[in-house]
Amino acid sequence: MDANFESELMQLLDEHKDEMIKLRRYLHEHPEPSFHEKHTAEFIKNYYRDLDCKVHDCGDGYGIVVDINADKPGKKLAWRADFDALQIQEDNDLPFKSQNPGVMHACGHDGHTAYLLVLGKCLIQLKDKINGSIRLIHQPAEEVAPGGALSMIKDGALDDVDDICGIHVMSTMPTGTVQLHAGPTQTGRANFDLTFTGKGGHASMPQLSNDAIVAGSYFVTQLQTIVSRRLNPFEVGSITIGSFDGVGSYNAIKGQVKLKGDVRVMSKETRKVIKENIEQIVKGTDVTFGVKSKLDYDDNYPVLINNRDLTKEVETWIKESDIPEVRAVKDSGVVNASEDFAYFAQKKPACFFYVGCQPKDGGIYPHHSPKFMMNEDCLIICAKSAASVICHYFA
Amino acid sequence: MDANFESELMQLLDEHKDEMIKLRRYLHEHPEPSFHEKHTAEFIKNYYRDLDCKVHDCGDGYGIVVDINADKPGKKLAWRADFDALQIQEDNDLPFKSQNPGVMHACGHDGHTAYLLVLGKCLIQLKDKINGSIRLIHQPAEEVAPGGALSMIKDGALDDVDDICGIHVMSTMPTGTVQLHAGPTQTGRANFDLTFTGKGGHASMPQLSNDAIVAGSYFVTQLQTIVSRRLNPFEVGSITIGSFDGVGSYNAIKGQVKLKGDVRVMSKETRKVIKENIEQIVKGTDVTFGVKSKLDYDDNYPVLINNRDLTKEVETWIKESDIPEVRAVKDSGVVNASEDFAYFAQKKPACFFYVGCQPKDGGIYPHHSPKFMMNEDCLIICAKSAASVICHYFA
Amino acid sequence: MDANFESELMQLLDEHKDEMIKLRRYLHEHPEPSFHEKHTAEFIKNYYRDLDCKVHDCGDGYGIVVDINADKPGKKLAWRADFDALQIQEDNDLPFKSQNPGVMHACGHDGHTAYLLVLGKCLIQLKDKINGSIRLIHQPAEEVAPGGALSMIKDGALDDVDDICGIHVMSTMPTGTVQLHAGPTQTGRANFDLTFTGKGGHASMPQLSNDAIVAGSYFVTQLQTIVSRRLNPFEVGSITIGSFDGVGSYNAIKGQVKLKGDVRVMSKETRKVIKENIEQIVKGTDVTFGVKSKLDYDDNYPVLINNRDLTKEVETWIKESDIPEVRAVKDSGVVNASEDFAYFAQKKPACFFYVGCQPKDGGIYPHHSPKFMMNEDCLIICAKSAASVICHYFA
Amino acid sequence: MDANFESELMQLLDEHKDEMIKLRRYLHEHPEPSFHEKHTAEFIKNYYRDLDCKVHDCGDGYGIVVDINADKPGKKLAWRADFDALQIQEDNDLPFKSQNPGVMHACGHDGHTAYLLVLGKCLIQLKDKINGSIRLIHQPAEEVAPGGALSMIKDGALDDVDDICGIHVMSTMPTGTVQLHAGPTQTGRANFDLTFTGKGGHASMPQLSNDAIVAGSYFVTQLQTIVSRRLNPFEVGSITIGSFDGVGSYNAIKGQVKLKGDVRVMSKETRKVIKENIEQIVKGTDVTFGVKSKLDYDDNYPVLINNRDLTKEVETWIKESDIPEVRAVKDSGVVNASEDFAYFAQKKPACFFYVGCQPKDGGIYPHHSPKFMMNEDCLIICAKSAASVICHYFA
Repeated sequence: MDANFESELMQLLDEHKDEMIKLRRYLHEHPEPSFHEKHTAEFIKNYYRDLDCKVHDCGDGYGIVVDINADKPGKKLAWRADFDALQIQEDNDLPFKSQNPGVMHACGHDGHTAYLLVLGKCLIQLKDKINGSIRLIHQPAEEVAPGGALSMIKDGALDDVDDICGIHVMSTMPTGTVQLHAGPTQTGRANFDLTFTGKGGHASMPQLSNDAIVAGSYFVTQLQTIVSRRLNPFEVGSITIGSFDGVGSYNAIKGQVKLKGDVRVMSKETRKVIKENIEQIVKGTDVTFGVKSKLDYDDNYPVLINNRDLTKEVETWIKESDIPEVRAVKDSGVVNASEDFAYFAQKKPACFFYVGCQPKDGGIYPHHSPKFMMNEDCLIICAKSAASVICHYFA
Repeated sequence: MDANFESELMQLLDEHKDEMIKLRRYLHEHPEPSFHEKHTAEFIKNYYRDLDCKVHDCGDGYGIVVDINADKPGKKLAWRADFDALQIQEDNDLPFKSQNPGVMHACGHDGHTAYLLVLGKCLIQLKDKINGSIRLIHQPAEEVAPGGALSMIKDGALDDVDDICGIHVMSTMPTGTVQLHAGPTQTGRANFDLTFTGKGGHASMPQLSNDAIVAGSYFVTQLQTIVSRRLNPFEVGSITIGSFDGVGSYNAIKGQVKLKGDVRVMSKETRKVIKENIEQIVKGTDVTFGVKSKLDYDDNYPVLINNRDLTKEVETWIKESDIPEVRAVKDSGVVNASEDFAYFAQKKPACFFYVGCQPKDGGIYPHHSPKFMMNEDCLIICAKSAASVICHYFA
Repeated sequence: MDANFESELMQLLDEHKDEMIKLRRYLHEHPEPSFHEKHTAEFIKNYYRDLDCKVHDCGDGYGIVVDINADKPGKKLAWRADFDALQIQEDNDLPFKSQNPGVMHACGHDGHTAYLLVLGKCLIQLKDKINGSIRLIHQPAEEVAPGGALSMIKDGALDDVDDICGIHVMSTMPTGTVQLHAGPTQTGRANFDLTFTGKGGHASMPQLSNDAIVAGSYFVTQLQTIVSRRLNPFEVGSITIGSFDGVGSYNAIKGQVKLKGDVRVMSKETRKVIKENIEQIVKGTDVTFGVKSKLDYDDNYPVLINNRDLTKEVETWIKESDIPEVRAVKDSGVVNASEDFAYFAQKKPACFFYVGCQPKDGGIYPHHSPKFMMNEDCLIICAKSAASVICHYFA
Repeated sequence: MDANFESELMQLLDEHKDEMIKLRRYLHEHPEPSFHEKHTAEFIKNYYRDLDCKVHDCGDGYGIVVDINADKPGKKLAWRADFDALQIQEDNDLPFKSQNPGVMHACGHDGHTAYLLVLGKCLIQLKDKINGSIRLIHQPAEEVAPGGALSMIKDGALDDVDDICGIHVMSTMPTGTVQLHAGPTQTGRANFDLTFTGKGGHASMPQLSNDAIVAGSYFVTQLQTIVSRRLNPFEVGSITIGSFDGVGSYNAIKGQVKLKGDVRVMSKETRKVIKENIEQIVKGTDVTFGVKSKLDYDDNYPVLINNRDLTKEVETWIKESDIPEVRAVKDSGVVNASEDFAYFAQKKPACFFYVGCQPKDGGIYPHHSPKFMMNEDCLIICAKSAASVICHYFA
């Protein structure tokens, strides 16, 4: 490795630390929800306007791909950051509090974008020292299935890419730690909509109706047997009915209920077992209760699988770089979350890792909380960790 | 009996048949929902303004009591008609269609009031022929618990009354029939609100939450055992969860669900068994699922019990009167409905009976349907049946 | 009516009161279970040996038909008494306690047979005074479906019969009362055997098994919805799973469970609704849990329907006879039991009524209890009530 | 290590290969069930009679401890083999088929004992070459909780012991493989007996009874929520109701049901969560259904945790020994079984490993099958693997 290159890059990043914070705050103040990130995308593209790189739109949404050393021979490493916000009303008192009512960067994607913009600019400045090319992937719509990754992949985002990395800041991990896990590292997810239609009627004559609340309730109890009896106890699986809409009045028997469900798994096999068994129990409920069901099952984000070799290397590299702001690099274990970076990881060897951003006061508000807050010290750690990986990768 | 009196009264009613229809149509065009019948009450009182009777307000709402021969010795018979409408948007195309958006006389109380006003006027005209006094009870708010009857009773509506009668028109019974049933004749009712509070959370970590949808669903399945196992199979009982509000999103575990329930019974014993067992299962659900419940249980309308002797007499009397518009007087069996006339029947020997009002075209829309319609021939039948009872009662 | 005939018959019965007791005690001491009543049948036939009547076997089992005035013109009245015992070990301390281990007359059929034998003998003695013929039906196997009645009917037991009566002694009714109910008077019954077959296995690997105990348990909970939601609340219906055989060990998952069920109804419609819904829920359970079911459903004893006219007459007649031992003749209401006399009542106008036999000490052990006991005063009441009916019937 | 010692020991074992088979067959022919292994224990002690070692009884049952170099300074390694059989009727056709009806070595403990006896004899012969002492633990009653280990530990079986090892033959693993797993390697287990007592009665009058089959069935459905909703999806937990005894008749409502349950876990925390939640749901069932429960909960075999360092060493050592009969040494993963060796492993660093014994024909009958069969080639592999560990341990 060109040790010079690494130290130059690290120094450049140090010099732009404040810019990262400024950018992050601007983005925080102007959040846009998934699939509607028009101005954010313009802001990003504008940032690269006068820099020596190739910028082009990618995918059905507002995705942007930025190539550094586009045609240079050698390996090609992709680095992804997402930039959508959530439909949550911010409940923080900040000078840069969200200006968009009901929308908030409550998951840290503002930080992801800020560090990658600055890192990109610095890499472009030093691009002649890189023995290959780097593709920055600014991805929209991570928060809402089907997500932004799939259509970017379809549109060529991973063409000629050898490997891909990405970072998520984590308010539940101490600032100063970098955490990662080889192999399956985030759960896969499915969502479903399920309607049971019976027949409404008056509470005084149940025999003339077909009570959909009763059918739906028994369904919920039967659903429990998938996790409790039909999965290998050594496999991970979780099924939640997050919504049971049987809203009605006292004395009318409900003719229809609408359910929403969420499934979490750590393997394709379990994903299949769960889907098939949900379908089976739905069909059985139709028979048992004489109702008509409609099941829309959406197998969305896959299990996020970190390539073992690459992840091992990333860990070693970051440790070797001895970044002053990083106190520890360690195994995160599996993280109970799902993310569409998993689609990239299905196509190319990938390493998705975590940078702690727990606030200094120790208070932790989970991601997606209206009080979510990041310790902005995480930004330089993100940038430097990524810089470490990039420098070693091309060494 | 003064046969003369009866024939004079019947003739008077015949002469006022059109007025009944006109009154009914006016009321139909200007419906007011339960507990808000201000103008209807004024309209009723205005009708009696120049008639020789005593009119006074009664109860917390818009109840009106009209005494004919107020202080005359002898028996005192009360006759009740209700006058509230429902919060339903009328879906009929009529010249006298409801003018009040979202409010409709969809249960026939407009007809009840119309026949009783005219009958009252005729009775006042012939009052010297009556060996006692008659109290007309114009009751508001029958449709919504706690109903209008209770507060009128408290305010003296039944003071010195010997017996009480009432009529309900029925679109499910052929016009030209009068139907009645001795003993228990309508179900008693209870309603309840039930909240289960667990603990919300993220679908990926069920162990940190307490899923209220799961608790509520198991509750619904357990509730079935009251009717199926805890009641005498020869007793009538029905329990409906008419509303299950567990509306949420895919991936959040619901921390709270809200249920609404309806109970129907034909005896005090069953009412007690059901209430106690609902309470018991709610408590058990709290323990089993570690949730906190809140149960608001409202034992409202009692079983409507027709006095056997009086009902027998009413049947005989109406048959004897040989009313030309009445083709049949017969046993209705128990009617699957509940009504707060039941409170009057708890205090005094009562007879509540039914007058068919099925439309001529044979089409039946049930009471409370936005397409409810009555055959207005029922009005004269109501008036003459009541007249028959009154004439025989004082004979 | 030939008042003379009645008083002669009553006097004859009084003279034979002790014989009835003796006969009943002999039968009590020598009980035989349903379908195995060989010696009891011989004992009965032997009793008639030298009497002037026609005795012949009837049906597939040990049924006996005895004709008095076999070919005499006029009406023909049948009178039925059953004679099988139960597989119960008697737990009474009596000089005439059951000599057959595990078998007991715990339902009073010993008494039924005793009174009918003596009554038969007396009737034969006075047969010339009877304007028609009487058929005594001694029926075996009432206690166990399909019962003894069906095959006797097939074999002609009701040929040329105009009407049929029968009596059951009741330990739950005070001795000295005769009780009866017009119309539906006992519930109809069905029984079923149900097997769910999943796949056995080791408790540590549920995913390789299919837990039949789980499938069976959910089935039981779903079954509750038939009575609670699918029947008219004004109809009688009851479903019991009386046996759930999932006997196994701690750590093996059961591959099969066997259930036994009992159904009670008061109408053919409800019988149909229940059967169809059980079949439906069984099929749904197969789908939901991936098990294989086997359902053997046996619609056995029908609702016992007493002919309204005949029952009214029987009531009037017994009252008129003013039997000194009878304190009251009254409406029993519907009796929560089932009996294959119902098959006779499907074919001919029938009256099945009850004679109280509650022990003097007031202690009541229900029928089928190992401590069941009858007050033998009931025997003369049975005989005289029957005599009353017969005398009036032929008057 | 004294390479000489190892090669001498291996050669000695080769010479005694047939003896192992002979011993195993003798034991197979004379199996004794857990806690009744009187003759087996005598047979074992007799084997050591003339050998230079210290033999003494240990524990409440038939446990035997054999010390080689009892007082020699240095490390002390214990080696355990169990010798109880199962109450299963053998269904194999073998010259040495079980002579004891209903009892069978269907888990391979005959093999365990056979190899350890021969290994012991060989070790005694070479004992001067061992720099420490070896304790052979012949343990009874592994198959039935509370097992034989606990009382042997109480009685000093592990006193002064530094480390302990044991082997289980596995018919599900190919013969020629040695498999092992560091850390938690077998599930912990609990068993429970649970009785629900309601009130029996007649199927025609459910309101007078309290149906224990219904209560038990709902309990089974609620129990599913522990694994499905109350455990961390990343934790292992399994709950089986292996027995549901609600055996009865068609038309009687069961007053009592008896359940047996099995619990599997991989951590103390999960064990606690499951136990507490079972207790909670039992209490809730009592309230919901008004039944009385009796729960006997037996937290028996712990999670078997292999010491990571020792297990790593054992793996390395066996690989180094390059045993000709061993084709592969590999990670077994966690084994879905429970065993009371876990108690030893709670007290001392332990390594419990597996030796494949799959029959040559490839047919696999699982352990505890009446057709269980072992490939006797496993015996020499057990002995040599143990020899390898012992030689390296004392090197």
